[in-house]
Amino acid sequence: MKWQTILLTGGFAAQLFVLPAVDAQQASVRAQEEPVPRTRTPVQLPNPPGFVTLKCDFHMHTVFSDGLVWPTVRVEEAWRQGLDAIAITDHIESQRYRADVSTNHNRSYEIASALGADLNILVIRGGEVTRQMPPGHLNAIFLTNVSALAIADWSEALQIAKDQGAFIFWNHPGWDRQLKDGKIRWYPEHTQLHESGLMHGVEIVNEREHYPEAYRWAIDKKLTLLGNSDIHSPINQEYYVHERDIRPLTLVFARERTIAGIKEALFDRRTAVLWAGRFMGEERFLRPLFDGSIEILNPEVTVTGRGRVLLQVHNNSSTDFILERIENPADLSISSQVTLPAQKTVLLDVTGRGNPSAGTRRVNLPYRVRNMLTAPDEPLRVNIGVEIRFVP
Amino acid sequence: MKWQTILLTGGFAAQLFVLPAVDAQQASVRAQEEPVPRTRTPVQLPNPPGFVTLKCDFHMHTVFSDGLVWPTVRVEEAWRQGLDAIAITDHIESQRYRADVSTNHNRSYEIASALGADLNILVIRGGEVTRQMPPGHLNAIFLTNVSALAIADWSEALQIAKDQGAFIFWNHPGWDRQLKDGKIRWYPEHTQLHESGLMHGVEIVNEREHYPEAYRWAIDKKLTLLGNSDIHSPINQEYYVHERDIRPLTLVFARERTIAGIKEALFDRRTAVLWAGRFMGEERFLRPLFDGSIEILNPEVTVTGRGRVLLQVHNNSSTDFILERIENPADLSISSQVTLPAQKTVLLDVTGRGNPSAGTRRVNLPYRVRNMLTAPDEPLRVNIGVEIRFVP
Amino acid sequence: MKWQTILLTGGFAAQLFVLPAVDAQQASVRAQEEPVPRTRTPVQLPNPPGFVTLKCDFHMHTVFSDGLVWPTVRVEEAWRQGLDAIAITDHIESQRYRADVSTNHNRSYEIASALGADLNILVIRGGEVTRQMPPGHLNAIFLTNVSALAIADWSEALQIAKDQGAFIFWNHPGWDRQLKDGKIRWYPEHTQLHESGLMHGVEIVNEREHYPEAYRWAIDKKLTLLGNSDIHSPINQEYYVHERDIRPLTLVFARERTIAGIKEALFDRRTAVLWAGRFMGEERFLRPLFDGSIEILNPEVTVTGRGRVLLQVHNNSSTDFILERIENPADLSISSQVTLPAQKTVLLDVTGRGNPSAGTRRVNLPYRVRNMLTAPDEPLRVNIGVEIRFVP
Amino acid sequence: MKWQTILLTGGFAAQLFVLPAVDAQQASVRAQEEPVPRTRTPVQLPNPPGFVTLKCDFHMHTVFSDGLVWPTVRVEEAWRQGLDAIAITDHIESQRYRADVSTNHNRSYEIASALGADLNILVIRGGEVTRQMPPGHLNAIFLTNVSALAIADWSEALQIAKDQGAFIFWNHPGWDRQLKDGKIRWYPEHTQLHESGLMHGVEIVNEREHYPEAYRWAIDKKLTLLGNSDIHSPINQEYYVHERDIRPLTLVFARERTIAGIKEALFDRRTAVLWAGRFMGEERFLRPLFDGSIEILNPEVTVTGRGRVLLQVHNNSSTDFILERIENPADLSISSQVTLPAQKTVLLDVTGRGNPSAGTRRVNLPYRVRNMLTAPDEPLRVNIGVEIRFVP
Repeated sequence: MKWQTILLTGGFAAQLFVLPAVDAQQASVRAQEEPVPRTRTPVQLPNPPGFVTLKCDFHMHTVFSDGLVWPTVRVEEAWRQGLDAIAITDHIESQRYRADVSTNHNRSYEIASALGADLNILVIRGGEVTRQMPPGHLNAIFLTNVSALAIADWSEALQIAKDQGAFIFWNHPGWDRQLKDGKIRWYPEHTQLHESGLMHGVEIVNEREHYPEAYRWAIDKKLTLLGNSDIHSPINQEYYVHERDIRPLTLVFARERTIAGIKEALFDRRTAVLWAGRFMGEERFLRPLFDGSIEILNPEVTVTGRGRVLLQVHNNSSTDFILERIENPADLSISSQVTLPAQKTVLLDVTGRGNPSAGTRRVNLPYRVRNMLTAPDEPLRVNIGVEIRFVP
Repeated sequence: MKWQTILLTGGFAAQLFVLPAVDAQQASVRAQEEPVPRTRTPVQLPNPPGFVTLKCDFHMHTVFSDGLVWPTVRVEEAWRQGLDAIAITDHIESQRYRADVSTNHNRSYEIASALGADLNILVIRGGEVTRQMPPGHLNAIFLTNVSALAIADWSEALQIAKDQGAFIFWNHPGWDRQLKDGKIRWYPEHTQLHESGLMHGVEIVNEREHYPEAYRWAIDKKLTLLGNSDIHSPINQEYYVHERDIRPLTLVFARERTIAGIKEALFDRRTAVLWAGRFMGEERFLRPLFDGSIEILNPEVTVTGRGRVLLQVHNNSSTDFILERIENPADLSISSQVTLPAQKTVLLDVTGRGNPSAGTRRVNLPYRVRNMLTAPDEPLRVNIGVEIRFVP
Repeated sequence: MKWQTILLTGGFAAQLFVLPAVDAQQASVRAQEEPVPRTRTPVQLPNPPGFVTLKCDFHMHTVFSDGLVWPTVRVEEAWRQGLDAIAITDHIESQRYRADVSTNHNRSYEIASALGADLNILVIRGGEVTRQMPPGHLNAIFLTNVSALAIADWSEALQIAKDQGAFIFWNHPGWDRQLKDGKIRWYPEHTQLHESGLMHGVEIVNEREHYPEAYRWAIDKKLTLLGNSDIHSPINQEYYVHERDIRPLTLVFARERTIAGIKEALFDRRTAVLWAGRFMGEERFLRPLFDGSIEILNPEVTVTGRGRVLLQVHNNSSTDFILERIENPADLSISSQVTLPAQKTVLLDVTGRGNPSAGTRRVNLPYRVRNMLTAPDEPLRVNIGVEIRFVP
Repeated sequence: MKWQTILLTGGFAAQLFVLPAVDAQQASVRAQEEPVPRTRTPVQLPNPPGFVTLKCDFHMHTVFSDGLVWPTVRVEEAWRQGLDAIAITDHIESQRYRADVSTNHNRSYEIASALGADLNILVIRGGEVTRQMPPGHLNAIFLTNVSALAIADWSEALQIAKDQGAFIFWNHPGWDRQLKDGKIRWYPEHTQLHESGLMHGVEIVNEREHYPEAYRWAIDKKLTLLGNSDIHSPINQEYYVHERDIRPLTLVFARERTIAGIKEALFDRRTAVLWAGRFMGEERFLRPLFDGSIEILNPEVTVTGRGRVLLQVHNNSSTDFILERIENPADLSISSQVTLPAQKTVLLDVTGRGNPSAGTRRVNLPYRVRNMLTAPDEPLRVNIGVEIRFVP
C-alpha cells in the first residue's frame, strides 16, 4: 500500500491512499508515517574575537526535585534547541516526590550526563540551595558531590560548595513569593555572601521575568550576569519552541567549548543574557554580536540629488534587532525605525537632503539597538557604515 | 516600563520597549512576558445518534516504567489536546528506573488521577502485561489493583485482570521487534485468549503504525478496535501538536462521558480509530461522523444548460475528508476529487451535461471518502444531497 | 511513479519518491503536487437577536486606480478570508495607471461583481472621492454610476452620490498626510456635509490605524462606525492571513444577507468595528457578541472551604477575549486576568474565601473585556454566571 | 494609550491596552500596529566552484496578458522570496483584458524593470509565443522589442526573437490541454525548431507539474533545463510562501550576477531545476550543491567494539536532503534512511560490526540523495567522509 500525503492547513494532516493492486492480506505492510524529526536548530550568534559564544541554561529541574520530566529529557531539549551546555539544578531541600523517587542528590546529574556525552551537550553537576529570603535560592554549579550540601545551615552549605570549586549565583531575586512588601531588595546577607566569595553571579532573568534592579546590582557589584529557564515542565508546554520562542539563555563567551572553559568564563564575568529577543550585557560583548550579525549587501550606493536609494540590510543571526535612528547624518535622511528580522534582509531608506558636495564619502548611520541593553535603560549605540557617492 | 511586542516570523519574537518616564530604580518592575497559554483545543467530531463521541488514548507510559515524564504530564497533555479519557498503562514487568523510582504498580495511576479530577479528564487504571511473543504485550484497563498482575505466568496474570473486571487488548501486534520472519501473525495463544474471554480488543494502530491485518482480524473475530499512542516522551517531541498533528485516538461511542460509560462501550465494540487523518471503524459510526461534519451552505442551486455552479461545502469537524467521485450523476459533471479541510469551506463544481428535462430534483452526488475505511481497503461511500433546478 | 510526502518544518517540503518498478519512459506520468487549497475560513461571530452579523470591508483598490491587483482578486481574497461583502472603491480623481488601464470608473465593479455572483460574495459598487482636506477622502457606496461623480466640485459630486442613494463616509480622518499641525480635526466642511445628509459615517479604523477621536465624534454626532482595509497590495503582503491576522472589518448587523440588507443597516447605524482583535461599537451589539461566544463547560461546581475549582471557559468565536477582574465576588477569589483564545478552552480559578454559608447560589463573576470598547476608553463590563455549591 | 501585544495562536492576535492616565481626547493618538514586514528570505544554496548560483523564474504573467497582478507585484514577490532574476513573459497572442488594458507588449516589462532597479532584482524582457500544439507555447527572453513577435506565423515570430538575440524554450510540454491522446510527445516541428537554433531549452517543470519525458529529451538532445512558476495569481494564493513552499526555480550557474551573465549561462546549459524540494540537473552541479550544504560537526569519532556513535550532520542550505543508504561500509552499520532538514542538524548512527582491526581510518558512508536526480530515475550518489578510530 502506498500513501500519498496531502498537506493541509487548519486540520489534521490528511493522507490519500492509493488502493493497492495486491491483496493487503498477503503482505504485512505497515503504513508508517514520520514523527517529528529529531533535529537540532542552531542558535546562530557570532563569536566575539578570541571567544566562542556558548548558549547555556544553568537552572532546571527534573523529577528528582519538583520537575516533571526524567533528567534525559533536559538534555534532549537542550540538543534540539541548539544549546551547548546545561546545569541540572534540582532543589536540595525540596524533593517533592521523595515518596516515589530516589533522594540521592547526584542522580539526576548522573542520568543526564550519560546522554549528554552521546549528544555532545555539556552537562554540569549542580544543585539549588532552596531557602527562605534572605538569602533565597542560590544555585551552585560545577559541584563534585551535591549531597554534601544537604545540611541545615545555608551558609555552611555554600561554603562546602565553594570548597568543591562551585560557581554560585542568586536565583530570581525578584520572585514575588519571596518579596517583602512587593519590593526586590539586596539584604545584608547578600553582601556577606558576596564578600565571602560565596556568591559570584545573579539571575537578572528567570523564566519569563526580568529584574532591572538585579541588572543594576550586577553592574555595580561586578556580579556575573545570568539568565536561565528554571524549567519544570516539558519545555514545549512553556515555550513556542517550534516558532523559535527560545528559553532565556546565559551566553557564555568561553575560550573553548568545554565545561572547564565555561567555568573559567563564568568566574571572569564573560556572559550576556538573551531573553525574549533582548540582549543584556557589556558593550564589549554586545557590540561584536551586533556587528557580526549584520551585513549591508549593497554597501556602496549612489545618491543623486534628493533621490532615494534602498540599502539591503541582512541579519544573519537567530535574533531580531530593533533599530531607532539617533539622528540623520549630514546631507541624508534615513529610516527612523528599522527592524532587522532574524535571517532576513530588509530595506533601509537613504534619501538625499541639503546640498552635499559631489564625491564619494564613508557615512555612518547612527542607530540605537533597542533590544540590546548595556544597562537597564541603555540601548547599544551602533554605526552602520556605508560608502555613498553623492551626485548633485 | 511598557513593552510593545512586535510579531516577527522567522526569528525570536522581539520586543520593543518604550523608555520609561520614571527611574527604573524606583519601582520593582518586572517586565514579564506570557508563556504558552494553557489552553485546550477541542477535537470536534459529531456524536452518532444516542452516543457521545469520546476521544481516548488507552496506552501510555510514565517514569514508573520506561516513560520520560511524571504521570501528571499525561493528564495535562490529554487536556490540552482535547481528549476525554486516558489509561495509564506502565509496563508491569519492565521498570527501567527501578533503581530510582518506586516499583508500586498503582502509583502512576494514583498520581495522575488526582489531576484528572481537577481538569475533568477521565483517568483509567491500567497496566501493560509485557511478554515475549506469543502472546506479546497486552493492556489490561479498568483494573482495581495493578500489582496483582505482577506474576510469572501471563495467562494467570490476565485471568486476574479479568477477575478485576478488566478490558484486555493486544498491543501493536505488528511491532517489528516481535515479528517472526518479518510477518505479523495470529498465534494459537491468541485464539486461546480470545476464546477464554481474556482478550477483547486489538490495537490496529499503535503510535505511527497501522496494521491492516489486525484490522481484518478485528472484523472477522469481532474484536474491539483500538488505536493508541503508546507515548513515552513528552508528546511534543513526537507530534506536531501545535499544528493539530494529533496522536492516534480510540474514538469511543459511549452512552455517557464516564469511566463506566467507556467500559460499557468498549465491551460492546463501539469504537473507531482516528489515526493520521484516517478513520477506521464500522459504517454505523463512520457514516454519522461524516454526515454530521459536512454542510452544503447553498444546497439549492440552479444549473442552466451546460453552465457551472459552485457548491460551498463546509466541514465543521477537526479532520479533513478526502473525496473521490464514484460516478457522475445523471445530467451533471461533478468534481472528481475534492478535499474538505477541517473547519473550512471549499467549492465543489457542478456542471450541466446532456439534455436534462427542466424542473427541480433532488440529486445525490456519490463519493468515496478515501480517509474513512470500513475495512482495510473499503472507503466509505457517501451521497451528498443537493436540490438542483435544471433550466434548459 | 509514486511519491510519498514527508512533512518537514523549517525547509522546503521534501518528497521521497519510490523508485518505479516500470520504465518511466513508458507512461506519461506527471508527479503533481497540490497547491494551496482554495478554501474559505469562516470568521465565527454570533448573531445578535434578530440580526445576522455580516463581515464587510467597504474600502479597497484595484489596478483601476492605484491598487496592484485585478478586481477579481479582491473577491477571491474576501471569499477566502470569510467576508460576506465588499465595496470596490477606486479613486475617482486619481487613476495612476491611466496610461495603460481604462478610465471607466464603473469597470472595476463590473469585473468584480461577476465573480462575486459565482462565489456568493456581495459586491457593492462604490468610488472614493479623493480631495484635499477639508473634506479629505470620502467613499460613496451603493452608487448606480460612479462616473457621474467625476466632476470638479466635491460638494456637487457628493450630492450626485446622494441622489443615487449612496451611503457616504469619511475615510481615514487621521491620515497623517492630510493632518494640519499633526492634529486630527473636524472642519466646518464636515459639519456642513453631515447636516446636509452627505456624510453618514466615518472610518474609525483604516488599514492598521485607529483614530480614537473619530470614535468619539461618531458617538457624539451619531455617525455610523466603519473600519476598512483600504487595501492596495495583494492582501497577503500586508496581513498574516494564514495566521488569522484579518484585515479591519466593519461588522454589519443586518436583517438579511443581501446588499439591500447591508444598506438598510448602515443607514440605521447598526455596525461595529473589528480591528486587530478589538471590537468597537455600541453595547447592544458587543454584549451579544461576547455572550454568544462564551460557554462555561462546567457551570455548576462545588467549592469546599478554601478549596479551588477550575472553570472550563470555552470561546467559540474567531477572536480572543481579554478579561480583567473588576472585583472578587462575595466569598470567592477569582482569576484577575484571563485571556480566552479563539476556539480554545481555558481554566478560570475560583477559590473559596471567607466563611460562606452552605448552599447553592448563582454567582456572577464580574470582568471587563479589555478588547471590547463601547467608547474610546470604555471596556465592556460582563458578568460570567455560574452556579456554586458552597460546602464549608 | 499604550498597547501590549499578547501572542496567541489559533485566533486573531489580540492586544491588551493599558488604560491611559490622560484623557484620550487631548492627544491625537493613533494606536498603530505593524503590518507584515517587508522582508527578503534568502534561498541558501552553495555556489559551485567558479559560479554563482542564481535563483530565477523565467515564466510569469501580469494584467498585461491574463495574470491578476500589476507588473511590479512580480518584482516584489521575487525580492521577498529570495530570487535573483525574473522574466516577464506575458502572452503575445492572448491579451485577456484588452478591453481595459494596454496592448503594448513591452509595457509590463517596462513597468516591472523600474522597481527591479530599486530592489536589485534582475528583470528580463520576454514574451510567450502562445500557439496550438505543435509547437505549443514557447518563451523568448532577452528580447529587445516584444511587439515585433506579434505576427501570425510562429516560425517567423521565433526567427525574429532569435534575431533579437533571444533565448527560446518550450513551455510545459506535458500540459494536458495540449496533449493528444493524453500523451506527451516531441513533434517534428520541435526537431525543426531545435535544429534551426530556435529552441534552446525546455521546461521540465511548470507550476506544480514535472515532465520526466521532457527531462529525458533535454539530456538526450542537449537542451537547457528550465523550471518556472508560470504564475498568474498573487503568489500567496498558490504557494505557502510563509512556510518556504517556494515556486519552481531555474537555478542558473552564472559567472556573474547580471542579465548578461544569466544569458551566457543559459546558452551554455548551466542550469538545474529546483522544484518541490527536488533538484534535477547534471551531476557537475548537483554534487557541489550537496557537498557545499552538508557539514559533519564531529567528523572524527571513536567506535569501540560494537558500540554506537552519533554523527551530527548539519545541512546549511534552504532545502532538505533525503538520504538512502547504498550499503554498509566495512565493519560498520549506518542509518539506512536519514533526512537532513534545511538548516538543522540531525543524528546519523554509526555502529561497530564485525572484527575491525584497531586504528584510525577514513571511511566513506555511501548514500543516494533521493531528491537530487541527475536523470529521471537516477538519484545522485554521495559519499559522506568521516574519520573513525576503531577500538576493539
